[in-house]
Amino acid sequence: MKAVIVKQPGGAEQLQFQDFPKPKVKDGELLIKVKSSAINRTDIISREGKSGYLSNPILGIEVAGEVVEAAHGAEIEVGARVMGLVNGGGYAEYVVMPAERAMRVPDHLSFAEAAAIPEVFLTAYQTLFWLGELTDQDTVLIHAGASGVGTAAIQLAKQMTQAKIIITAGSQEKADFCHSLGADVCINYKEQSFAKEVLKATDNQGADVILDFVGASYWEKNLKSLKIDGRWVLIGILGGSVVEKVNLMELLGKRVQLKATLLTPRSDEYKKELTEEFVNRAIPLFKQDKIRPIVDQIFPFADIQHAHKHMEANRNIGKIVLHVN
Amino acid sequence: MKAVIVKQPGGAEQLQFQDFPKPKVKDGELLIKVKSSAINRTDIISREGKSGYLSNPILGIEVAGEVVEAAHGAEIEVGARVMGLVNGGGYAEYVVMPAERAMRVPDHLSFAEAAAIPEVFLTAYQTLFWLGELTDQDTVLIHAGASGVGTAAIQLAKQMTQAKIIITAGSQEKADFCHSLGADVCINYKEQSFAKEVLKATDNQGADVILDFVGASYWEKNLKSLKIDGRWVLIGILGGSVVEKVNLMELLGKRVQLKATLLTPRSDEYKKELTEEFVNRAIPLFKQDKIRPIVDQIFPFADIQHAHKHMEANRNIGKIVLHVN
Repeated sequence: MKAVIVKQPGGAEQLQFQDFPKPKVKDGELLIKVKSSAINRTDIISREGKSGYLSNPILGIEVAGEVVEAAHGAEIEVGARVMGLVNGGGYAEYVVMPAERAMRVPDHLSFAEAAAIPEVFLTAYQTLFWLGELTDQDTVLIHAGASGVGTAAIQLAKQMTQAKIIITAGSQEKADFCHSLGADVCINYKEQSFAKEVLKATDNQGADVILDFVGASYWEKNLKSLKIDGRWVLIGILGGSVVEKVNLMELLGKRVQLKATLLTPRSDEYKKELTEEFVNRAIPLFKQDKIRPIVDQIFPFADIQHAHKHMEANRNIGKIVLHVN
Repeated sequence: MKAVIVKQPGGAEQLQFQDFPKPKVKDGELLIKVKSSAINRTDIISREGKSGYLSNPILGIEVAGEVVEAAHGAEIEVGARVMGLVNGGGYAEYVVMPAERAMRVPDHLSFAEAAAIPEVFLTAYQTLFWLGELTDQDTVLIHAGASGVGTAAIQLAKQMTQAKIIITAGSQEKADFCHSLGADVCINYKEQSFAKEVLKATDNQGADVILDFVGASYWEKNLKSLKIDGRWVLIGILGGSVVEKVNLMELLGKRVQLKATLLTPRSDEYKKELTEEFVNRAIPLFKQDKIRPIVDQIFPFADIQHAHKHMEANRNIGKIVLHVN
């Protein structure tokens, strides 16, 4: 089968196709014929040789496709349309997936749409609810509102809570799109100081929850934007990783809860529990068409290098999907 | 009545006695004749003019004494022996306490012993269980093990969980005392690198929970000592407040949950809920003599300046108590 590996750590040009035998399933696993896969920031970090989470030489952490083999203990029938997280190997024609992590694709969604769901919606769910502990009375500040996780988080927060949703985005087009998904206050960070706008929108109280993909360059402004007892969920460092001078007195004064998280390196058990809760609580909203996957663009499998470059250019709204089979 | 105020922000010599009228109770409040009060770090910070939490000009945030008046809605009888947190005013002959925050003093304890309970045991309970989410399978690292909160935390962790308890202290005498309270691994930080010892004691995994009173000077070593998915509860900055460089990548790699907390500025509702849970779950262990207040020294009320200097000298094991009436 065709699959994508990294020749040596570096840029998108290092992504190469290579022939592999079909992977073999163990107890509790499914073999999936991959229809669509999707691109994630963590794939870029892996490509650059900076993560080291995954032992799989094939990139890709999520797919949608058809079950072609179900090993002992895997309780899904051959032929089922499924989507879910995989432990690497997603940029390939076939991949192994633990059965307890497979979600059935709602009937009205295509495989390309389904591939746009697992990583960003599970991450948004985990960060909003498990770590952010978002409630109806809260305000949530979602940075990079038009990104894959951002568009998922806006919809989940809107459909599952009464929370006030504030987003930041880097263009008017992106801000408008976030508004259409349900964001209450949309800040173009290139034209406005987001900390000032957040305080204005919250009666000077600040946000109860921040989803922070940016890190160092937003540190001070996030601290200003956070309410006392707020939960600050750090899930990315697009704005750098090193903060010069952190004043712990300020963290104490606001009783900040700073929670750093990544989904990919977490245990199979964690991903299983997260998937199960998501299937019970969020998938019904997809079936009712209240929440939808946001696909920015679908690239042919052969154009994997372009797909990575497109993500690195930061112009996408929603997910970048690969059409594999 | 006699009470202690701060003449102007500064050292212990700024603590002065002044006459005040007895405070008046409102609905739901008790008037307490103070028998004993206790010294806390937060009193020193208030004395230095650095906190601004309390509007009460009289210092002191915890007392033990007798109920002499119970306002409408305060369901404790006059004459009851109680202990608890007050909203300032504890260094005085009489003080007002919200009734829902009053804990009955177990019969076998003196007022001096009772005054050594509220602030440090409630803080230890809150940080270990509410914020630290300590479980039987965990390891907890408690810095300043011989301090008021430290001695409380060791006992609560020992009696309420099967967790492994590691402490740091600045002398062999303090380390030995912590061992006698139930600490499993006692590190004299002046003679050993605590990060190295914690990793040795945890099969290189690190501690699941850290109670950090130290802040900046321990930042790097605490980060090394913390396990993946660990909860790092920041409750003091005895070692400075400014960390020169924080690498967010390291926080992400360990999925650190850094939770900064203070008890004194929290709401009446929070203190009520914390007190109620503590009364239900921990006070029975005092009655069974499995947990005991640790009193370092009792100072006459008139010696308030010496009592503050004694805390600032950092030689105490357990609590510094004031004998008021």
